[in-house]
Amino acid sequence: MSVPRIGIWIIGARGGVSVTTLVGLSALRRGVIPETGLVSSLADFAHLPLAEWDQFVVGGHEIRSTSLLAEAERLHRESRVIEASVLGASRTFLSQTDANIRPGVLWNVGSTIRQLADGAIPDESLARSAVDRIQRDLKEFQQREGLDKVVVVNLASTEALLDPTLWPETWSQAEQMLEEPNCSLPASSLYAIGALELGMPYINFTPSLGATPLGIDELAKKKNICHAGRDAKTGETLLKSVLAPMFAARNLEVMSWVGHNIFGNLDGKVLSDPENKASKVKSKDQLLERILGYPPQSLVSIEHIGSLGDWKTAWDHVHFRGFLQTPMTLQLTWQGCDSLLAAPLVLDLVRFVLVAQERGETGALGALGSFFKSPLGTDQHGFADQTRVLLKWSRGPE
Amino acid sequence: MSVPRIGIWIIGARGGVSVTTLVGLSALRRGVIPETGLVSSLADFAHLPLAEWDQFVVGGHEIRSTSLLAEAERLHRESRVIEASVLGASRTFLSQTDANIRPGVLWNVGSTIRQLADGAIPDESLARSAVDRIQRDLKEFQQREGLDKVVVVNLASTEALLDPTLWPETWSQAEQMLEEPNCSLPASSLYAIGALELGMPYINFTPSLGATPLGIDELAKKKNICHAGRDAKTGETLLKSVLAPMFAARNLEVMSWVGHNIFGNLDGKVLSDPENKASKVKSKDQLLERILGYPPQSLVSIEHIGSLGDWKTAWDHVHFRGFLQTPMTLQLTWQGCDSLLAAPLVLDLVRFVLVAQERGETGALGALGSFFKSPLGTDQHGFADQTRVLLKWSRGPE
Amino acid sequence: MSVPRIGIWIIGARGGVSVTTLVGLSALRRGVIPETGLVSSLADFAHLPLAEWDQFVVGGHEIRSTSLLAEAERLHRESRVIEASVLGASRTFLSQTDANIRPGVLWNVGSTIRQLADGAIPDESLARSAVDRIQRDLKEFQQREGLDKVVVVNLASTEALLDPTLWPETWSQAEQMLEEPNCSLPASSLYAIGALELGMPYINFTPSLGATPLGIDELAKKKNICHAGRDAKTGETLLKSVLAPMFAARNLEVMSWVGHNIFGNLDGKVLSDPENKASKVKSKDQLLERILGYPPQSLVSIEHIGSLGDWKTAWDHVHFRGFLQTPMTLQLTWQGCDSLLAAPLVLDLVRFVLVAQERGETGALGALGSFFKSPLGTDQHGFADQTRVLLKWSRGPE
Amino acid sequence: MSVPRIGIWIIGARGGVSVTTLVGLSALRRGVIPETGLVSSLADFAHLPLAEWDQFVVGGHEIRSTSLLAEAERLHRESRVIEASVLGASRTFLSQTDANIRPGVLWNVGSTIRQLADGAIPDESLARSAVDRIQRDLKEFQQREGLDKVVVVNLASTEALLDPTLWPETWSQAEQMLEEPNCSLPASSLYAIGALELGMPYINFTPSLGATPLGIDELAKKKNICHAGRDAKTGETLLKSVLAPMFAARNLEVMSWVGHNIFGNLDGKVLSDPENKASKVKSKDQLLERILGYPPQSLVSIEHIGSLGDWKTAWDHVHFRGFLQTPMTLQLTWQGCDSLLAAPLVLDLVRFVLVAQERGETGALGALGSFFKSPLGTDQHGFADQTRVLLKWSRGPE
Ligand SMILES: NC(=O)c1ccc[n+]([C@@H]2O[C@H](COP(=O)([O-])OP(=O)(O)OC[C@H]3O[C@@H](n4cnc5c(N)ncnc54)[C@H](O)[C@@H]3O)[C@@H](O)[C@H]2O)c1
Ligand SMILES: NC(=O)c1ccc[n+]([C@@H]2O[C@H](COP(=O)([O-])OP(=O)(O)OC[C@H]3O[C@@H](n4cnc5c(N)ncnc54)[C@H](O)[C@@H]3O)[C@@H](O)[C@H]2O)c1
Ligand SMILES: NC(=O)c1ccc[n+]([C@@H]2O[C@H](COP(=O)([O-])OP(=O)(O)OC[C@H]3O[C@@H](n4cnc5c(N)ncnc54)[C@H](O)[C@@H]3O)[C@@H](O)[C@H]2O)c1
Ligand SMILES: NC(=O)c1ccc[n+]([C@@H]2O[C@H](COP(=O)([O-])OP(=O)(O)OC[C@H]3O[C@@H](n4cnc5c(N)ncnc54)[C@H](O)[C@@H]3O)[C@@H](O)[C@H]2O)c1
Ligand code: NA
Ligand code: NA
Repeated sequence: MSVPRIGIWIIGARGGVSVTTLVGLSALRRGVIPETGLVSSLADFAHLPLAEWDQFVVGGHEIRSTSLLAEAERLHRESRVIEASVLGASRTFLSQTDANIRPGVLWNVGSTIRQLADGAIPDESLARSAVDRIQRDLKEFQQREGLDKVVVVNLASTEALLDPTLWPETWSQAEQMLEEPNCSLPASSLYAIGALELGMPYINFTPSLGATPLGIDELAKKKNICHAGRDAKTGETLLKSVLAPMFAARNLEVMSWVGHNIFGNLDGKVLSDPENKASKVKSKDQLLERILGYPPQSLVSIEHIGSLGDWKTAWDHVHFRGFLQTPMTLQLTWQGCDSLLAAPLVLDLVRFVLVAQERGETGALGALGSFFKSPLGTDQHGFADQTRVLLKWSRGPE
Repeated sequence: MSVPRIGIWIIGARGGVSVTTLVGLSALRRGVIPETGLVSSLADFAHLPLAEWDQFVVGGHEIRSTSLLAEAERLHRESRVIEASVLGASRTFLSQTDANIRPGVLWNVGSTIRQLADGAIPDESLARSAVDRIQRDLKEFQQREGLDKVVVVNLASTEALLDPTLWPETWSQAEQMLEEPNCSLPASSLYAIGALELGMPYINFTPSLGATPLGIDELAKKKNICHAGRDAKTGETLLKSVLAPMFAARNLEVMSWVGHNIFGNLDGKVLSDPENKASKVKSKDQLLERILGYPPQSLVSIEHIGSLGDWKTAWDHVHFRGFLQTPMTLQLTWQGCDSLLAAPLVLDLVRFVLVAQERGETGALGALGSFFKSPLGTDQHGFADQTRVLLKWSRGPE
Repeated sequence: MSVPRIGIWIIGARGGVSVTTLVGLSALRRGVIPETGLVSSLADFAHLPLAEWDQFVVGGHEIRSTSLLAEAERLHRESRVIEASVLGASRTFLSQTDANIRPGVLWNVGSTIRQLADGAIPDESLARSAVDRIQRDLKEFQQREGLDKVVVVNLASTEALLDPTLWPETWSQAEQMLEEPNCSLPASSLYAIGALELGMPYINFTPSLGATPLGIDELAKKKNICHAGRDAKTGETLLKSVLAPMFAARNLEVMSWVGHNIFGNLDGKVLSDPENKASKVKSKDQLLERILGYPPQSLVSIEHIGSLGDWKTAWDHVHFRGFLQTPMTLQLTWQGCDSLLAAPLVLDLVRFVLVAQERGETGALGALGSFFKSPLGTDQHGFADQTRVLLKWSRGPE
Repeated sequence: MSVPRIGIWIIGARGGVSVTTLVGLSALRRGVIPETGLVSSLADFAHLPLAEWDQFVVGGHEIRSTSLLAEAERLHRESRVIEASVLGASRTFLSQTDANIRPGVLWNVGSTIRQLADGAIPDESLARSAVDRIQRDLKEFQQREGLDKVVVVNLASTEALLDPTLWPETWSQAEQMLEEPNCSLPASSLYAIGALELGMPYINFTPSLGATPLGIDELAKKKNICHAGRDAKTGETLLKSVLAPMFAARNLEVMSWVGHNIFGNLDGKVLSDPENKASKVKSKDQLLERILGYPPQSLVSIEHIGSLGDWKTAWDHVHFRGFLQTPMTLQLTWQGCDSLLAAPLVLDLVRFVLVAQERGETGALGALGSFFKSPLGTDQHGFADQTRVLLKWSRGPE
């Protein structure tokens, strides 16, 4: 039996995380970089039948008409991260992949994202028609490339968050919304619906709505397919989910937790729009109360500072009280390259989701909670607990 | 049946941690402070038959002839931590406890600690005679105060560490050493032997040797008694044991971990002696390799900066590599009041050790590993894992 | 000849800076604290005929009906800064001073400040009438206490800033505004006018408008009196004005300078109102371009974090480029007690302004620029240059 | 008249600072980088007749037989600082310069530096003979390249510091030492003597002894030539000399100043030897007392952390007291690329020293104090004052 070919379909295919993932994937195929940063490559998961790097074929949707290569060169130049040799060797792979990219959907993305778009992007008058187009692209990709499976990953810019009272609670409600001319669902949800209806797993790496509403989760279950999300946990929030349990376990009272994030890439520019930022901040800010059992005063800022490029710098100031009510302080400074922290997790998620699909798991995969700031399908937020659950999940049902 | 009276016998009874523990204990008895910082007071442990604050009577050994009150006032003045009202109300308790303090043992403590001593401290010519004196003091305390049980806690200055090749591996070997005129065991081990021979549990809050050697652990088991140690985990090392597992779980390669500690109390002064410091640094530095599975370059410094008093400030610089080998950085600054972080753990350890004694557990209590930098009786160093083990232990044998 | 008695009239007399100044002044009079933090007490200024601490009598305007003592006790309790003994000994002085405090003026202070007010505060229908009341209070204070001179210091909450196009450019224009029912001048300017018309020097410690407009400066010159301002430089901005000249002198290109400030006192609460905050941020943010000669991307945030009380914590992140265009980083964390940094400067400014008045200097005192974030009467922003100018000024005209 | 050709003779020619200087010089000649980081290129010095980049020819002494190109490639690879294109274009210049490098002198350099040496390094039995060889190399360089002037710059590894009681106080004393078989002068001083005897200016960029002794300064004056030193001020000490004057000017009492430096280049490896480190630490640590007028407790550590390469990270913790004796804290983290901070100053110093030589200035150039941690010829340590003096000097004698 021949090795299956697997498609990864990326929404936001020419963005920073996507390009970094692609350069990395190309280097992994050639075996020129170690598997540092890849969770799925840990010895802990060696028993799993994980997809190999050369099984993957990539395509996607995008709204900007730049090229993968141009974006990779920009990353190299501005953030001084991708080495010249690694970049050079990935050129062919990048241009082949570029040929698999199709115009995206701009339904309800808001003006900041809409302004990014250039070239000819079809503008459907019904959400259902946009979903149809998405599905035509997905099927064409699968057939043309002869793919056994396709996983859809949302790496597009963060949309403004839809008011939760408008989230569809059943699939029939969602289905109906798609036919209404003023359908309030954002593009990320249309992509999710497009994928799930075709029985393709959907991963939401971003804080956008995607498959979050119960109504869309119902669709997944109906189609016997799984999905995972929301908003990958790569920096400050990761640290919060690691450190907050310590304060809880030591009965130290967190009085306030302030986090200031600065960075300068395109993602940061989109997040300068207060509406888009709100999705992100919310996603970053909820876990303290869950872990501590009470809400300390908390503040999260995200600001675009151009000179930093992809280097996200976060300063956290934790003010807590110990014995005899004495106030003490912990401060953190995190200097991480955002796309490089994200890229391996994209590959991890695709591999783990494929395992879940093989096992027949459906709906939101709570076992992948350690990867997300607002994990679907679980209430756990502490990172150590989430890590243990992932490990246990990997061993399969007892 | 009347409520049992429990003795806590503190080695180093007039030191910073001890005095803070006593002021806190007095305030807890009066109910004027919340139980912040006390692990044993968490809801998680509400099912345990924990000792109440007013069951405790305190005594101890000490080599300096200052008074508890004088030391408490110094802490208040210099480190601005203990509030005037809290201090005022604990005066009676402090002076009553002072009457229970006896001259300590200076066997093999090294010149820096020896220089701290004042007043008339007996200087036995045989280690066994020093142990005898310790036991006379313990028995006299128990009888005079009518105590059901006595727990011995080592809060004395950090001794220089004995070369591991000289640690007794059997109790008979240890027993023989006590009779040799040049017995190389340090005071902390004599105190441990003194306690365990009398069937009293022993807790080693410090990096000193205490009951660490197998030969002394054998004594504990023989006497059906438990002990716990070594070196309480209250600051930088706590953070390491919380954060290092995150790097492991994310497959991020820690290249170097540098930690600089500055503080200005008496403990810090003793640790300025390179020999004494070596015990502490070793205890702080071993866990990275255990957690990560490889040894990053690592550096730990401890320096005495007088102006800081009891305020321990630690700066940690973690240099790690992510995907595509990109170096990134996490920095931490911890500003904690050392004695206030330590004091509640002293009370927690006493309470938990009493539960273990009641249950008949013997030897080193690995389940209390979360409290220590160099935990005895366990190989676990990750804080989340240790926390889970403690919780599980609290539920008792299945 | 008897020693002159000098009045200090404080606007915002029961605020944090004022109370701290008064507790300190009381301690200085009793000689129980060293003169740490007082610029005027440096050997450099020993040749100046500076006022002595016991020459001062204090009164002021205030809109809250709390007492000086109550506020001092709050500071002591919440921010753990003023020592109990120092506070205790200043009780008499505080209550005597309290008797000299009169209801303030709420003209155009905005809703956030207005909400602070309690008790019976007269509400004039004309700005001129409010000025009249201010002047009655000032004259009554001077006469009742038999004062040779009175200096007025604005320590009131930061007002929203008036649009610069509305600032009066001549005194006659300002005078006319006072008679208009919708006079747009804020309270701080009415206080300034009140003082200057009476020939009393005016110091604006805050970012509020005060005597900033040319039209009010003209009044000062007409009356042969001096004034100084604006917005005392006590923390982050001080550091900026010290460090930015280094980058300039080394030809290092500052690409971005981000500053995040968190603190929890009443001042911080007022600054949570975006309008009031805007005054402060503007005042903090202008000097980089002046010093560097070009505007780096710059960001200043001020947020109220209750648990910090008077402890202002500022994190600054400076991203600069060196040789071969290499980006490098300097980060600062400043943990200062805001009122304690401010209080000695209040006393310094009063003393220096009295010297200027004695010498007959009029208008804005540019020589005091080192004390202010938005210095009036000078274009210099670099701290070292300002310090040199102050020193030179102290030696008097050549 | 033709443009003069100027030689720069570098001791330690294949070290990190030297290689970076050469790559930068090559780029400046080609005009492909801006003059960022170059003090002499500031508008303030536009009136000076400064040497142009293409007037320079470089040669030097070295004890390691690697090549300039190999070292430049290592810097590029390990520290990710020099861009590939900039490096590529400097290849020819680097290999031409390599041909001008001669074996260095190992007299009294200590075992750590001696171990760096490879290839055939002559080992003279008299210091005077080593000086002779140095002079032969210098003259041969000047003649072969047809140079109008040669400036000698010490960029070699930091030697252990000679006990000050052994420093020659007169030239005749120094001259005599050179003839003694056990001459205690280190190589850096032999190089200095070699240069000055030939009437060539000498710049000591390192903490090594060089021309520091009065006896060698006397030689310079005798020969009507100037010299400058010692230990370039590029990071933590620069910040100290900028910030300490602020604490002085505000009458804030610095109680302690702790500085921890970590970095991973060859310089750092040499400084791991406690003897060599002592020179550096001393040079870094003296200025606080000079600026403040009293010695705060102070601590400076320098540690070699391999993963950091050329990235020097310094953490400074300043503990100071304000009004009412309240302790406050300022912390700094500096992340700078050491060679890139140093390289432009090498070029600045050469240019300024040439101006001084042209003007006939002799002995130690105190006006260049802003460039050094232990400035010769001046007592000034505050950076702003030093900057002003440099500016004034540039305008020439009045
Ligand atoms: N560490 C991380 O980088 C990290 C962590 C968590 C979440 N995320 C999220 O991942 C997403 C990607 O981050 P990034 O840094 O690559 O951002 P980016 O701005 O570089 O890339 C986003 C891409 O999406 C494209 N896009 C936007 N709307 C689209 C649409 N409707 N259809 C198709 N394409 C669309 C944009 O043109 C752009 O190319 C963001 O939402 C970000 O918040 C990133
Ligand atoms: N957060 C913490 O404070 C913390 C954390 C872990 C470990 N520890 C350890 O706990 C111990 C106590 O810390 P501290 O801050 O109270 O120190 P400390 O120096 O204030 O107190 C130690 C006391 O022990 C006394 N002592 C010394 N040798 C003795 C002996 N042989 N017999 C009897 N008494 C003796 C000393 O006189 C002193 O009063 C130290 O070893 C410290 O390293 C403290
Ligand atoms: N380091 C510093 O603390 C610092 C530095 C620079 C500037 N400032 C400025 O100094 C001022 C005082 O700071 P603070 O911390 O004392 O603030 P605060 O809020 O504690 O005190 C301000 C006082 O002014 C009173 N007030 C407000 N409006 C008034 C009016 N119209 N008339 C009379 N009283 C009025 C308030 O009731 C309050 O008591 C603020 O504007 C602050 O921004 C402070
Ligand atoms: N920011 C900075 O980099 C900085 C600042 C101040 C001072 N310094 C000093 O500048 C010097 C150079 O720094 P670096 O980073 O280039 O160090 P480096 O170790 O990379 O280079 C020193 C070079 O000197 C050579 N050398 C040693 N002894 C010699 C001798 N006797 N004769 C000839 N060559 C010899 C070594 O082989 C090496 O190539 C060091 O002393 C350093 O302390 C550097
Ligand atoms: Na991103
Ligand atoms: Na204030």
